Amino acid sequence: MVLRMSRLMLKTLRDDPADAETASHKLLVRAGYVRRSSAGVWTWLPLGKRVLENVARVVREEMDAIGGQEVLLPALLPRENYEVTGRAGEYGDLLFQLRDRKGADYVLGPTHEEIFTQVVKDQCTSYKDLPVILYQIQTKYRDEARPRSGVLRGREFQMKDSYSFDTTDEGLAEAYRLHREAYIKIFSRLGFDYRIVSAVSGAMGGSASEEFLAPAAAGEDTFVDCPACDYAANTEAVTTVVPPVEGAAHPPLEEVDTPDTPTIETLAAHLGVPASATLKNLLVKVDGEIVAVGVPGDREVDLGKLAEHLAPAEVELVTAEDFTGRPDLVRGYVGPQGLTGVRYLADPRVALGTAWVTGANKPDTHARNVVCGRDFEVDEYLDVVTVEPGDPCPRCGAGLKLDRAIEIGHIFQLGRKYADAFGLDVLGQNGKPARVTMGSYGIGVSRAVAALAEQTADGQGLCWPREVAPADVHVVAAGKALQTELALEVAEKLHAAGVRVIVDDRAGVSPGVKFTDAELLGVPTILVVGRGAADGVVEVKDRRTGEREELSVAEAVSRVSA
Amino acid sequence: MVLRMSRLMLKTLRDDPADAETASHKLLVRAGYVRRSSAGVWTWLPLGKRVLENVARVVREEMDAIGGQEVLLPALLPRENYEVTGRAGEYGDLLFQLRDRKGADYVLGPTHEEIFTQVVKDQCTSYKDLPVILYQIQTKYRDEARPRSGVLRGREFQMKDSYSFDTTDEGLAEAYRLHREAYIKIFSRLGFDYRIVSAVSGAMGGSASEEFLAPAAAGEDTFVDCPACDYAANTEAVTTVVPPVEGAAHPPLEEVDTPDTPTIETLAAHLGVPASATLKNLLVKVDGEIVAVGVPGDREVDLGKLAEHLAPAEVELVTAEDFTGRPDLVRGYVGPQGLTGVRYLADPRVALGTAWVTGANKPDTHARNVVCGRDFEVDEYLDVVTVEPGDPCPRCGAGLKLDRAIEIGHIFQLGRKYADAFGLDVLGQNGKPARVTMGSYGIGVSRAVAALAEQTADGQGLCWPREVAPADVHVVAAGKALQTELALEVAEKLHAAGVRVIVDDRAGVSPGVKFTDAELLGVPTILVVGRGAADGVVEVKDRRTGEREELSVAEAVSRVSA
Repeated sequence: MVLRMSRLMLKTLRDDPADAETASHKLLVRAGYVRRSSAGVWTWLPLGKRVLENVARVVREEMDAIGGQEVLLPALLPRENYEVTGRAGEYGDLLFQLRDRKGADYVLGPTHEEIFTQVVKDQCTSYKDLPVILYQIQTKYRDEARPRSGVLRGREFQMKDSYSFDTTDEGLAEAYRLHREAYIKIFSRLGFDYRIVSAVSGAMGGSASEEFLAPAAAGEDTFVDCPACDYAANTEAVTTVVPPVEGAAHPPLEEVDTPDTPTIETLAAHLGVPASATLKNLLVKVDGEIVAVGVPGDREVDLGKLAEHLAPAEVELVTAEDFTGRPDLVRGYVGPQGLTGVRYLADPRVALGTAWVTGANKPDTHARNVVCGRDFEVDEYLDVVTVEPGDPCPRCGAGLKLDRAIEIGHIFQLGRKYADAFGLDVLGQNGKPARVTMGSYGIGVSRAVAALAEQTADGQGLCWPREVAPADVHVVAAGKALQTELALEVAEKLHAAGVRVIVDDRAGVSPGVKFTDAELLGVPTILVVGRGAADGVVEVKDRRTGEREELSVAEAVSRVSA
Repeated sequence: MVLRMSRLMLKTLRDDPADAETASHKLLVRAGYVRRSSAGVWTWLPLGKRVLENVARVVREEMDAIGGQEVLLPALLPRENYEVTGRAGEYGDLLFQLRDRKGADYVLGPTHEEIFTQVVKDQCTSYKDLPVILYQIQTKYRDEARPRSGVLRGREFQMKDSYSFDTTDEGLAEAYRLHREAYIKIFSRLGFDYRIVSAVSGAMGGSASEEFLAPAAAGEDTFVDCPACDYAANTEAVTTVVPPVEGAAHPPLEEVDTPDTPTIETLAAHLGVPASATLKNLLVKVDGEIVAVGVPGDREVDLGKLAEHLAPAEVELVTAEDFTGRPDLVRGYVGPQGLTGVRYLADPRVALGTAWVTGANKPDTHARNVVCGRDFEVDEYLDVVTVEPGDPCPRCGAGLKLDRAIEIGHIFQLGRKYADAFGLDVLGQNGKPARVTMGSYGIGVSRAVAALAEQTADGQGLCWPREVAPADVHVVAAGKALQTELALEVAEKLHAAGVRVIVDDRAGVSPGVKFTDAELLGVPTILVVGRGAADGVVEVKDRRTGEREELSVAEAVSRVSA
């Protein structure tokens, strides 16, 4: 059906909404694709619904192609499911919670691992029933503290979530590979510029979890990108490359008086050395025991990384009380040399044979020429410092860049965590119960719309890739009756040729407003029926490049249909 | 894509679920279409999702055909919207309510009139922007006190709701007509046996609201059906046909002693008259004032109808206290003759010239030959008694039947109620603000699946109309390798011819189980590849009629594709 703007509910705006910060938020509202209902909760207006549906269709086609079976689970879920796995607590305030008239506790599902596990437990009893890949495109809920950026991070949003169920690790790896390939097809078809990055460090298995990131200034994720090779990674997943240590002999350890040097900066300035030559020692409690973590003074410890490395042990920062009764620990002046009974973890840069300025374990005193392996030992090396721009690429050694991105997909080998929680076994080939292993795979469907808008919009407005655009061509009738008549005729011809058409047949709207709206709406091809109409000539314009060409109606129809 | 049962997640059950009462509940669970998540909350498994999607597709096509514009509104909605219209209170415990992390009150939308009104207020500013028909197919929530009957009455369910916006009453009437025609197409295409009934009595405007009812034993609605003509109505909407009153002269009013006659039955027996000859007088308080309602003794007053007729006045039953200080009102012996200062409402059967046995306004005493118009006056006639089987059809006079049905659709001219509540005006043609008038139109999409199952299932299982069936043909490979090979070949040929195919290629499952499953699943055509496979002969069976025919593969493919 030809979409006629004279009948379409559409109000475009000239001004950005006051609260909008990102391009997608501004433009999706201005172009009448979405409308705010409440904080982080959005209405999809007719054009927005079309784009959303186009994304969903591509996702559905590629999920079907890898044998995914579409189902639809509820959003209203008994809270107890999330208590079994401990995720009710982990999600905390992110969970929307409610009680029904009988007092039973429910949550609005933020993601469905628990429920899918139970569905499969109910439906599959034998190894013959597996493997299975199930998916749904469904509404999810997360009570974000600061919902913002329009539909990029909403509190109610559309997601494709899928789950694989296998009896063997090889089966899980295959389901993961199938999803990876499907995601590559999906994001390529949708017209994304994207990177696939490891979501966890190599230590944990490398490919067990990967994120699909769409580079965009509005992104909330930071990732590491090598300008020289194709290496890209989540900042948490970058492995440290340690430059070779020069074999120089170091002078003996020497203590120096360093009053008024409370920070690395003041210390480095006082001694006239770079911050990278100092060794910073962070004290933490690991399951209640005090542990020191040594990193170069110019680096920050990523506490999330540290906690992940030491899990399941619990990591806490030390407090003033922890120093009472410990005269060996001098706050602000800790050094690894002579530390006894304290486990010493360190960044790989603190390599054997490297020399440092560090605390002398006395007030107002530091030590220099403190050499690793000579003056102190490292109990364990950990990759726990933040990546900095210019750090060497672990693959090619070039200086890394740090970029912003939007996470548009995530694939994850869950393993047996949920199957263990719910006792999901099937009869194995050997006649014994076999515990099932799972994968979980997500695509933010509504987020993808915003992310595409971020990546493709230009100064004039939205600029959709063809596969997701609300139409293939936007026919503009400049205004006169003859032009409108021809525009509608051209629209019908294009429609008959299988082209999706919007036609601007509005009366009483100036050509200038119509052209501006066409640019703002972002349909890939704009076909103007204007001055040439009397001679059967129209203008075909590429929305992205701005290239335009005058053609006869027949030529234009055949060009656009091709 | 050919759906192979060897890979489909499907577990059929031989036994009905313990808590299931209705055919659709039993069969949809047994055939693996749906699975209970919690009370009134359901998971749609792969086959169920297909049927659900087929219903949604038909609805979408017909809504698009009348110019409906598809949108998607949130389910999570600020409670304040429902306070503005007073519906938060009206819904009461039916509303799922929750609070977000900041303490703001939300509800899960039970229906969206309030929010659509606001969307249109935001998007449409001039009469030129109207008329508009908006629709969505979306998840709705109602915290039913007793969710039951499977997906027939769930607490989370799929609904198509649409809303029309016009500046004139004629426009609303046209939007209503368009919806009525679309609904007729939709329910016919879906394969329903259905009736369109007036939802309110003629007094309120007749066509302002109609229900689409699917007759079914499991239905929760009762409706009136004329076996002689095409009259059908909601029981509340039937108008009373008063038989002509005979002109006989009545003997004078006579009081009779009637001890121990506390009920109509005992009174009628005592006096040897039918209950229909007695006049029952119900006392109610209307906005605090006592009013009497007279109806024949064999009829019950429908308090809902009464309240609707007297709205917005508030109707309450009288209590013992209301009789104190009113010696004129003798409890159990009220008669309209001599009642002073009490308004007397009556059923139309209490016509001028009719004579009754009724209370004598004295304890233990009744009066006979109490004639309407001679001994008492009726202040107002009201249609407030329940319909009984055999009552005359208001159209043709034949005796009416009462049947059970499932409400599958509802169309309703709302008028300006919501526009008034939210101040929805557009600039009128005369340059002045024009208040918008609305219609609201619903189809229970998930309910339609259950209702179709109710109407079409037979002793063997489900039996889908083609348009909603999860496939057109169910190919059964009886079991041998040669048969499975041919079955898959036939399946691919049918698929290539545009036929939607399920093929039962499961290994290690007996032919008997496969045949039983095929009947249970209810795909319209069953194609068995069995003994004749070696000779290229297959059996084509009609699921509904059971008619079967042996055909060559080529004949079978061409027959099924046709």
